[in-house]
Amino acid sequence: MLKSQAFEKIGIVGAGSMGSEMALLFAENGLTVSSFDVAGENVDNLNKYRDSASEDVRSRISTYKDYDSFISSLGGTDARKLFVFSIKHGNPGDQVLQSMDKYLTKGDIILDGGNEWYLNTERRQKSLEPRGVHYIGMGVSGGYQSARRGPSMSPGGNTDAIKEVLPILEKFAAKDKKTGQPCVTVIGPGGSGHYVKMVHNGIEQGMLGIMCESWELLYKCLAIPLDEISGIYRKWAEQGELARNFLVEIGVDICAQPDDHTHSASHLLNKIQDKVVQDADNSEGTGFWTIVESANRHVSAPTIAAAHFLRIASSDRAQRLEVVEALGQDLGAARKQQLSEDEKTAFVEDLRLAVYCATLASFAQGMNLIARASKDEEWNVDLSKCIQIWREGCIIRSEYVADLLQPLFEKEPGVRNMLSLKPVADEVKRTFPALKRVVQKSLEWNAHIPSLSATLEYFKYCAGLHLPTQFMEAELDYFGAHSFDLKEEGPGDVKKGKHHFEWKPA
Amino acid sequence: MLKSQAFEKIGIVGAGSMGSEMALLFAENGLTVSSFDVAGENVDNLNKYRDSASEDVRSRISTYKDYDSFISSLGGTDARKLFVFSIKHGNPGDQVLQSMDKYLTKGDIILDGGNEWYLNTERRQKSLEPRGVHYIGMGVSGGYQSARRGPSMSPGGNTDAIKEVLPILEKFAAKDKKTGQPCVTVIGPGGSGHYVKMVHNGIEQGMLGIMCESWELLYKCLAIPLDEISGIYRKWAEQGELARNFLVEIGVDICAQPDDHTHSASHLLNKIQDKVVQDADNSEGTGFWTIVESANRHVSAPTIAAAHFLRIASSDRAQRLEVVEALGQDLGAARKQQLSEDEKTAFVEDLRLAVYCATLASFAQGMNLIARASKDEEWNVDLSKCIQIWREGCIIRSEYVADLLQPLFEKEPGVRNMLSLKPVADEVKRTFPALKRVVQKSLEWNAHIPSLSATLEYFKYCAGLHLPTQFMEAELDYFGAHSFDLKEEGPGDVKKGKHHFEWKPA
Repeated sequence: MLKSQAFEKIGIVGAGSMGSEMALLFAENGLTVSSFDVAGENVDNLNKYRDSASEDVRSRISTYKDYDSFISSLGGTDARKLFVFSIKHGNPGDQVLQSMDKYLTKGDIILDGGNEWYLNTERRQKSLEPRGVHYIGMGVSGGYQSARRGPSMSPGGNTDAIKEVLPILEKFAAKDKKTGQPCVTVIGPGGSGHYVKMVHNGIEQGMLGIMCESWELLYKCLAIPLDEISGIYRKWAEQGELARNFLVEIGVDICAQPDDHTHSASHLLNKIQDKVVQDADNSEGTGFWTIVESANRHVSAPTIAAAHFLRIASSDRAQRLEVVEALGQDLGAARKQQLSEDEKTAFVEDLRLAVYCATLASFAQGMNLIARASKDEEWNVDLSKCIQIWREGCIIRSEYVADLLQPLFEKEPGVRNMLSLKPVADEVKRTFPALKRVVQKSLEWNAHIPSLSATLEYFKYCAGLHLPTQFMEAELDYFGAHSFDLKEEGPGDVKKGKHHFEWKPA
Repeated sequence: MLKSQAFEKIGIVGAGSMGSEMALLFAENGLTVSSFDVAGENVDNLNKYRDSASEDVRSRISTYKDYDSFISSLGGTDARKLFVFSIKHGNPGDQVLQSMDKYLTKGDIILDGGNEWYLNTERRQKSLEPRGVHYIGMGVSGGYQSARRGPSMSPGGNTDAIKEVLPILEKFAAKDKKTGQPCVTVIGPGGSGHYVKMVHNGIEQGMLGIMCESWELLYKCLAIPLDEISGIYRKWAEQGELARNFLVEIGVDICAQPDDHTHSASHLLNKIQDKVVQDADNSEGTGFWTIVESANRHVSAPTIAAAHFLRIASSDRAQRLEVVEALGQDLGAARKQQLSEDEKTAFVEDLRLAVYCATLASFAQGMNLIARASKDEEWNVDLSKCIQIWREGCIIRSEYVADLLQPLFEKEPGVRNMLSLKPVADEVKRTFPALKRVVQKSLEWNAHIPSLSATLEYFKYCAGLHLPTQFMEAELDYFGAHSFDLKEEGPGDVKKGKHHFEWKPA
C-alpha cells in the first residue's frame, strides 16, 4: 500500500488501450483510480475490461464520462490531485488541459504519459508552473502490454514534483532483472522527459528497419521457412550480442504464429500488408520528430532516417503500385538464392552480427542526439540513466548493448559521440566486416537494405580520415564563396574556413 | 531604362558578397541603387568594388551606413519604396525589419532575397501586410557570381506586389538559353517562394553529395589524375544525361585548378580540408530545413538526407579523428584499383549514368516535397514553372533533366510522385542497372557512397511491390496494437489497418 505517499488517488485521463492497462496497473499497486475519457465507448470498454480483474482491483477503479464527477472523485477542485494523461499528442492534450483548467489547484501534478513534442510540453509547463501546477512530460515505453506489466518511464519537468511521485512510479515501473532497479528516473527539467522518449522511439525506428531487413534476407533470399526463422531469432535472443533484444524476441513469436486470424493454414505474417502508416497518418509523431531534431541539431542519424523513409514509402502502397506500373518492373524483388548449408550458416551468423552492428549505430545516433540536445538546452541528462531505464519494459531493450554502454556513460557522462569510446569502437571494428559482407550479398540478391546500407556508410564516414567532402567544399566555395580550410592547417574547429579562391573571376 | 515602372530606385539592405553583386546588377539594369549595411566594412568593400564598374553604373550606386540617410535617398518615409534584403536568415531579418519599421509606408515592397525559413516569411507577411507593406520571400539562386550575371529567382507572397516588380526582376534574371524566357516567376502566396528556394538547395545538397562521391571514385579508386577527371567532367557536361549540369561543369574548373593558392606545384583541390561546416555552424539553413520538412510532411528524401548527414559528419574533423583513433583504423579508406583501360572506360560510363540516375532521385524527392507542401498549404505551385526558373542561373541547373521534366509537369501539374510519370520511370529503369553496378563496385573498393547507395535503396522501395515492412507492421502490432491490413484487401488507403492480433496475451 502507498499510505505514506502524498497521493492515494490517481486520475487517469484517456481510457484507450494504454490508459486502460495503466488503470489496472495502478489499482493493482494499491492506488484508488478514477478513469475518465471524453469518448464514452472507451469508458465502456474499460468497464468491461475491469470486470476481468480481481475484486480487490475492481473495487479501486471508478470510471467517468464527465469532468465534474471525475474531479469530485479525486477530492474536488481544492484538493491536491495527481493525474496521468494517456492521450494523443498535440491538440487533444491542449483541449484536455483547457477543459480541466478550472479544476486545477496549486500542487496538482499532471504526468503526461503520452508521446508529446517536447516544445508543446515546455509551453504547457510555462503556462501551468506559475500557478503551482506541475506538468510532467513522462515518456512511457513498452507498448500497451507493458503498460500493464510495468513500463519504462522517463519523467521530465519540475524535479521536486517528480521526486514526490517517484516512489509510486518506481513501484509500478519495470525492474531490471539483474539489479532489481526500477526503470524510471528523473530525466531532467523542461521537456527532457518527452525528448528522451522521442529518441527512444527513434532508436526503435532504426531497429525496426534493421529487423525487417534481416527478416527479408532470411525469408525471401535464403528461403528459410518461417518456423525456422523463429528458431533462428530465438537463438539470437538467447545469448551473445542480441541477447534479450526485445525486437528479436517478439520476432520469435511473430514468425511462429499460424494464421488464426483468417483461419487458413499458412502463417499470419504472410497475410499482413506491407504498409506502415503511423507516421504518414500523423497518429504517431516520435518517428519523424527524431528526424526533425537530428536535422535541427546537426547530428547525423542516417540509420534512423533510412528506416523512417522506408516506412513512409511503405505507407502509400497505391502510389508504389503506380510507380511499378510506370516502370513495368518491380525494382525491389528480392531474389531467392541456392546456398549450401555451410554458406547459409555463415550468412546467418554474419547477419546476426550485422543486426547488432547496425543496432549500435541506431543507439549511437540516438544517444548523440540526446547528448547534443541536453547540452543545447542545459538539461544535464545522464546518458547512463537513459540506458538504465531502457534495461527492461521498453521496446529497445537490448541487454548486451545496455551492458556495454551503461558503465561507459557512467564514466564519461559528457561524451558527444559514443563512437569515440574505445569499447564501443572495438565492437564496431569487430562487427563491421560482417555488416559489409551482408550489405554486399544483399545488393547481389536485390534485397531491401536501406537501414543496413546507410549504417555501413555511416561508419565509413564517422570513422573516415579523408572524406570526399573536400570536393563538395571546393564546389561550395566556387559558387558560394563559402571558404575552406587547408589540410595543412589541421582539423580546426567547426567554423567557416579562412580561405576563398576565385575559381572563375566573377 | 525602366521609366515606365513604378520604381526607379531600389534600396538594398546588406552589402555582403551577394548584396554587392546585386547592387551592380540593378545599376547596370538602369535602376538607381541605394546600398545599406549596418556593418561599415561591408559598405567600404562595396565602395571599392563599385569603383571597378563603368562611370554610368558607378553614378547610380550610393552607399549608406545609417538608416536615416539611406531612407532619405529613396525619397523618405512617405514615398513608396522598393527594397531588396540580402541578409542572413532568422534574427538578422527581424532586427532589420524592426529598425526599418518607422520608415515603412503603404505600398512599400520588400523583396527578401536571402534564404529564410518559410514560417518566418509568413510571420513577417502577417505583421506587415495589414499596413499595406508587401514582404516578398524571394529565393535567389546562383551564388554570388550569378547574382551579378543574372540569378534564378522564386518570389512568393502578395501576387499583385510581385507582378508590379516582375518586369524589373525579369530584366535582370538569368534567361533560358533555348527560349530566352527569364528565370523568375510568381511562385505563389505566403512563404512559397522561400520554400521553393529551400527545396532547390535541398536538391543541390543531394547533387553535391552525388558529385563528391563520383569524384572520390574517379580520383582515389580509379586513380585518374585530376586534369583527366576535369576532362571527363567536361565530356559529361557537353552532351547526354548530364548536359549543362552546373555542378558537373564547375567540377571541370575545380579539378583543373593548379595550386595558385599556396603557390606550390600540385592542384588546389588536393590542399582543401574535407570539412563542410555551413549547416553545423548555422550559417546556412536550407540544407537541414529540407530534411525537417521532408520529415514533417512525410515525403521520403533519403538521397538528400544521406548527403546532408555526410556533410554534417564532415564538419567536425576533430571528432572524426577521435573515432578513428578509438578504432585504430580508418573504416573509410577508399582503395586504389588496378583496372584495364576497358574496365575503366566501362566504369566511368556507368558512373556517369549513376550520377544522372541519382540526380533524378534528388529531383524526385525535392519535387515531391514541393507538391506535398503546395497541397497542404494551398499554394498552388506550378512544378513546371519551378523547372523553368531552374533552367539557368541556378546551382541545380541540369538541361537534360529540365527538358525531361518541364513538359511532363505542364501536362500533370498535380502529380504527387514524379516517379509515377512514365517517361521518368523509363529513365530510372534505363539507368538503375548502372547505378547498381557502381554501388556494388564502390562497396568492394570501400569508397564513400552514402548518397548513391541511399538512392539505390530509394528506387528499390519506391518501385517495390513487396516491402519487408510487413514484418515491421507485425512487430508494431505486437507491442503497440497498431493494427494492420491484409494483403488480400488490396492496397487501401494510408490509414490505420482494420485488424489487430493478440500475438501474446497481455
